[in-house]
Amino acid sequence: MTGLHEQLESIFHPKSVAFVGISTSNPFHWTRTFWDSLREFQFEGPLYPVNPHGGELDGYKVYTSLEEVPGEVDYVISTVNAKVAPAIVQSCARKGVKAIHFCTAGFDETGEVGSEGLQQKLAQLSRETGVRIIGPNCMGIYCPESRLSYDTGFEKEAGNVGLISQSGGNSIYVAREAGWRGIRFSKVISFGNACDLNECDFLEYMIDDPKTTIIAVYLEGVKDGRRLARLLGRASGRKPVILLKSGLGEAGARATSSHTASLAGDDNIWDALCRQFNVIRTSTAEEMVDVLVTLTYMPDPGGRNALLIGLGGGASVLLTDDFERQGLRLPPLPDHVQQELMSFSQLAGNMLRNPVDYSQDMLESSNLIRAIQVLTAWDGIDFCMGFFRPSQLPPPAWEIVMTWGEALVKAYLESRKPVAFVCDSAVIPERHSKLFPVLQSFINSKVALYYTFPGAARAISMVVEYNERRLK
Amino acid sequence: MTGLHEQLESIFHPKSVAFVGISTSNPFHWTRTFWDSLREFQFEGPLYPVNPHGGELDGYKVYTSLEEVPGEVDYVISTVNAKVAPAIVQSCARKGVKAIHFCTAGFDETGEVGSEGLQQKLAQLSRETGVRIIGPNCMGIYCPESRLSYDTGFEKEAGNVGLISQSGGNSIYVAREAGWRGIRFSKVISFGNACDLNECDFLEYMIDDPKTTIIAVYLEGVKDGRRLARLLGRASGRKPVILLKSGLGEAGARATSSHTASLAGDDNIWDALCRQFNVIRTSTAEEMVDVLVTLTYMPDPGGRNALLIGLGGGASVLLTDDFERQGLRLPPLPDHVQQELMSFSQLAGNMLRNPVDYSQDMLESSNLIRAIQVLTAWDGIDFCMGFFRPSQLPPPAWEIVMTWGEALVKAYLESRKPVAFVCDSAVIPERHSKLFPVLQSFINSKVALYYTFPGAARAISMVVEYNERRLK
Repeated sequence: MTGLHEQLESIFHPKSVAFVGISTSNPFHWTRTFWDSLREFQFEGPLYPVNPHGGELDGYKVYTSLEEVPGEVDYVISTVNAKVAPAIVQSCARKGVKAIHFCTAGFDETGEVGSEGLQQKLAQLSRETGVRIIGPNCMGIYCPESRLSYDTGFEKEAGNVGLISQSGGNSIYVAREAGWRGIRFSKVISFGNACDLNECDFLEYMIDDPKTTIIAVYLEGVKDGRRLARLLGRASGRKPVILLKSGLGEAGARATSSHTASLAGDDNIWDALCRQFNVIRTSTAEEMVDVLVTLTYMPDPGGRNALLIGLGGGASVLLTDDFERQGLRLPPLPDHVQQELMSFSQLAGNMLRNPVDYSQDMLESSNLIRAIQVLTAWDGIDFCMGFFRPSQLPPPAWEIVMTWGEALVKAYLESRKPVAFVCDSAVIPERHSKLFPVLQSFINSKVALYYTFPGAARAISMVVEYNERRLK
Repeated sequence: MTGLHEQLESIFHPKSVAFVGISTSNPFHWTRTFWDSLREFQFEGPLYPVNPHGGELDGYKVYTSLEEVPGEVDYVISTVNAKVAPAIVQSCARKGVKAIHFCTAGFDETGEVGSEGLQQKLAQLSRETGVRIIGPNCMGIYCPESRLSYDTGFEKEAGNVGLISQSGGNSIYVAREAGWRGIRFSKVISFGNACDLNECDFLEYMIDDPKTTIIAVYLEGVKDGRRLARLLGRASGRKPVILLKSGLGEAGARATSSHTASLAGDDNIWDALCRQFNVIRTSTAEEMVDVLVTLTYMPDPGGRNALLIGLGGGASVLLTDDFERQGLRLPPLPDHVQQELMSFSQLAGNMLRNPVDYSQDMLESSNLIRAIQVLTAWDGIDFCMGFFRPSQLPPPAWEIVMTWGEALVKAYLESRKPVAFVCDSAVIPERHSKLFPVLQSFINSKVALYYTFPGAARAISMVVEYNERRLK
């Protein structure tokens, strides 16, 4: 544990928070985001809105300056204009504030002459005063344990995934999408332009944080490549690290510079770095979520042998292609397993091989449960995946999926062999409303749920590869 | 026009249909699918249910045999057990039926001794009697023009896409998913085991069919590779052909054999074939739908230069990566365009380059419209794509997307430069119900709509490549 670790620990767990620059007149103003989120999360310490106009906000007194706040202020969330930012740091220093998060944009990322001077000024003030800065141009901290959040809709339950993201939007995407798939977070940090605290500081913290067992990182650029490499080496073998590095092409690099004033760097270097330290490298945010789901709910299937069972011959063939394309295997059923299946299943319209299309018995709950029991008991497979394409099923799709889900969960609980579902998420509102609660019930049973065939195959293959390399 | 063409033309437009083997007792029995669909589609000719038990169905007299039907029968949809199938063909011959569709499974695909004899018997009977057979083990014909369908939910409006699918389930997936995205079909054929009429027969028909301008094919295997190659050559340069060939790996080949008794063949041969005849080869059903959307609503952007404008810096960087990974380009905005944008847009929090993140003015409708007008007027780009990630937007996501959609459609109508949307389809039921009608309104404006960033990039790149090769 370093001084940095303790410093960040206290930043993640402030006793009081001030909101400098919050709009007191417009309840829909973006500066209200943080206020609304901490109130929604029932932050336990005092909250201090600060706005030169004073007045009242949701029954709280609005202070005209930070200095006017009567109690101690641990943490400041600032939404003031970029030009005023340096003065706020000085004000924080006078007040004894430990850290300030600048949400505000308008610094280096604009590429405007003069604006980078502002960011340098902030960095210099941070060094001089000891007030640590998160940002500017970011969303700050979501730490369910201490009830800090920047989105009222984030999950309130704390978990084991630490997410470090240079982009606020991408952190919201991953936190929400993974949250709906049953993933819970220890800490999420959107750190933006990183004039003081940067990706390496947060990564170092996460590696040592006992509450974080999986680390996900979204980077546009990096300030100190050598330190990052050292840290990835330290994480390697201790905790899985998933990296999404964006801004790879010409326009992508231009975009990262415009977004968070980052230098994107060479793709090959990133590839080599990830290979060396067994970092799971994803290329899209969707993939990152799929990998988080796999690491959480199917941490080590122990091998590449899959059994696929579900609805639809054509769907089973396409899913098989997706699996084989990713180096996963579908061993053929041995005779005795096939014979046992045939003894109680229909033959016409089913495919009793691997993949198994069990369409004809899809509503015969007892046959289905028995089939899945027979199949998961077979030691030729490492995991079992149920597949459903609601947009291909007859209207009571949710009932069918529910019956299947229950059978698979039952088999999973009996065999302890990892079980997953892939339920292709067609955009059908009238079905979604009924299907979603069914899918939620699987998630509550702690099984991996995927929304696309290729995504499921790719994420599982990546995690299997991670485990293969880890055990070498 | 060949004899085959006329024969198929009359099969696609029967004057009367008999349903042999339909359940008269159970309204939820799968054999009711076709009956329900033709009634839902208001098929105009007489419908004859046939079941040995006789009786009545939905107010129609049920005949105990085909021979008992008083009028002429053009087309038979048979759901009888495989073993009875040969007798039904003979019965069709006596009645003067032109074609019979065997939905029933339980033939070669089961791999059972004796069952392949059944399928050979059907083929032989077809040759002897002249009764053409579709199937067995398939869903048959969806032809909105003649009001034939095998799904009550298919679109009733006829269109220009012909789909030939060896798998019934995959044909339903593509027809429904593409249907929701604004694609309309001339004919869809699910042909299964193809004991008589096969993929080549239907492809030959589609090439000559004036109502079909785009051909999509899902194949698990092929009976006559040389004829298929000849036909792809004939289609080449006349109509785009999209091919999804499945069953590529070891287990995939086993699955196609088990599904439609097909020999899958070597992937490299398929690749060479597609290159030679400029066939658009997709590797998933999702890709096929995305390509259909692109060919229909953005048939030829004329080049690879894209302008991306939407919400979220991080999202814009990831989408840029997806575009560049697929060989699409994002040319930087020239100074005069950037200056013009800056003259009325906010600088902080926006990214006024390419990609353009216009988050700060996202609800300023007039600024937004002006920005898109300025950008689409610039001749450095071939097409413009709006991007939205509803799961990252604040709650009134649908209103924001609507404002943007209207601005983009307006710009499109003024500039005639292709405009598309990618609206990441997060699985959020409470949002879907409001977002979906908004997306539908874009589809009604005849713009391309995609649901994933990588999918949009890949489909557009494939269609641009198709056009490049076509014009060589």
